[in-house]
Amino acid sequence: LSPTERSTPHRLRDRTRSDRVELHALLDDAVLAHLSVVRDGAPFTVPTTFGRDGDTLYLHGSTGARSLRLADGEQVCLNVTHLDGLVYGRSVFHHSANYRSAVIHAQARLVTDPAEREHGLRVLVEHVTPGSWDHARRPNRKEMAATAVIAIDTFEAAVRVRTGPPGDEPEDVEAGTAWAGVVPVTTVYGAPEPCPLLPAGFATPPHVAHRSA
Amino acid sequence: LSPTERSTPHRLRDRTRSDRVELHALLDDAVLAHLSVVRDGAPFTVPTTFGRDGDTLYLHGSTGARSLRLADGEQVCLNVTHLDGLVYGRSVFHHSANYRSAVIHAQARLVTDPAEREHGLRVLVEHVTPGSWDHARRPNRKEMAATAVIAIDTFEAAVRVRTGPPGDEPEDVEAGTAWAGVVPVTTVYGAPEPCPLLPAGFATPPHVAHRSA
Repeated sequence: LSPTERSTPHRLRDRTRSDRVELHALLDDAVLAHLSVVRDGAPFTVPTTFGRDGDTLYLHGSTGARSLRLADGEQVCLNVTHLDGLVYGRSVFHHSANYRSAVIHAQARLVTDPAEREHGLRVLVEHVTPGSWDHARRPNRKEMAATAVIAIDTFEAAVRVRTGPPGDEPEDVEAGTAWAGVVPVTTVYGAPEPCPLLPAGFATPPHVAHRSA
Repeated sequence: LSPTERSTPHRLRDRTRSDRVELHALLDDAVLAHLSVVRDGAPFTVPTTFGRDGDTLYLHGSTGARSLRLADGEQVCLNVTHLDGLVYGRSVFHHSANYRSAVIHAQARLVTDPAEREHGLRVLVEHVTPGSWDHARRPNRKEMAATAVIAIDTFEAAVRVRTGPPGDEPEDVEAGTAWAGVVPVTTVYGAPEPCPLLPAGFATPPHVAHRSA
């Protein structure tokens, strides 16, 4: 898993998939993305949550923020990566990582239509915390005014995947002196931690309890 | 956790820490970073593994790669983020995420000195898969020639952290109609999966077995 090998589909053909079903599954598995823009000629990257509706991703931000206010039509790169395993080769050279990664190039669209702004926020909230849109208090006018909603089209996306054991050299396999294999890496949701200000005995609702199941 | 709030330390002073100890701990907890560069005026981001030695991070790549060959002195942005929890507010507006994130701006340095190249690779390998440098076969001349080693100085780094329960509005707390709290998110290393080509009965060495402990 090196910056160069990740970006050379022509060299590592087997790691490149264009199937949109696979892209959508990878995105739906994740709540965290890395959003990159260019500022003063330099790259600038921040982590962000997102939601997906078909081929559109929705992000949100604060309208009052100074450092990263996305302009309508601004070129962005969105990357979503799952680290699935650490690959131990018989040689240092064949150490690697199992992963699923999507890189999306797009022009950010600042959503202005009130109905789509609410829709985008709902998609985002239901992606990250399913069930919260109906359970929690919805945004009021003041909160909506303080929220920027950004849409990103996933049309220009590349998916790269590595799975399986290391691709060791035959002579290292034969030598049989080193262990080889994969240590799987997974993301786990733990038991809900209630807010200290909740009334005693307030039951954890199913949409939260199910998250950890 | 929105792209704008993450980048406005002046607005969210309590989420900004400059302590290098905290930066180092955050980096040492992670094996995955997102590396961004500018290509043809557009941002371009790839995931990558890394290692840390003091204030220097080491990455590696393939010298044969075409799409992302870092130039010596090229401006990069490196982001390392831990998602620690999903924050459920009593209002949709106060839903958030607990996280630890570092953003590093630097000029990439292409390491050419043979001793530092080996040192950098060792740091990277021992960061991602501790114990592998001594256990696995080390890189031979051909493998070293195929490997680019990149150093990134962490001097210009910002750390942002969010912890704890949601920051709900007093009137929503008083209403007491919605659950609020945090669903913790953790990364877990699973039981090692031996390579199918390993001889039967090959014991999993301690440096691998300990990874899942």
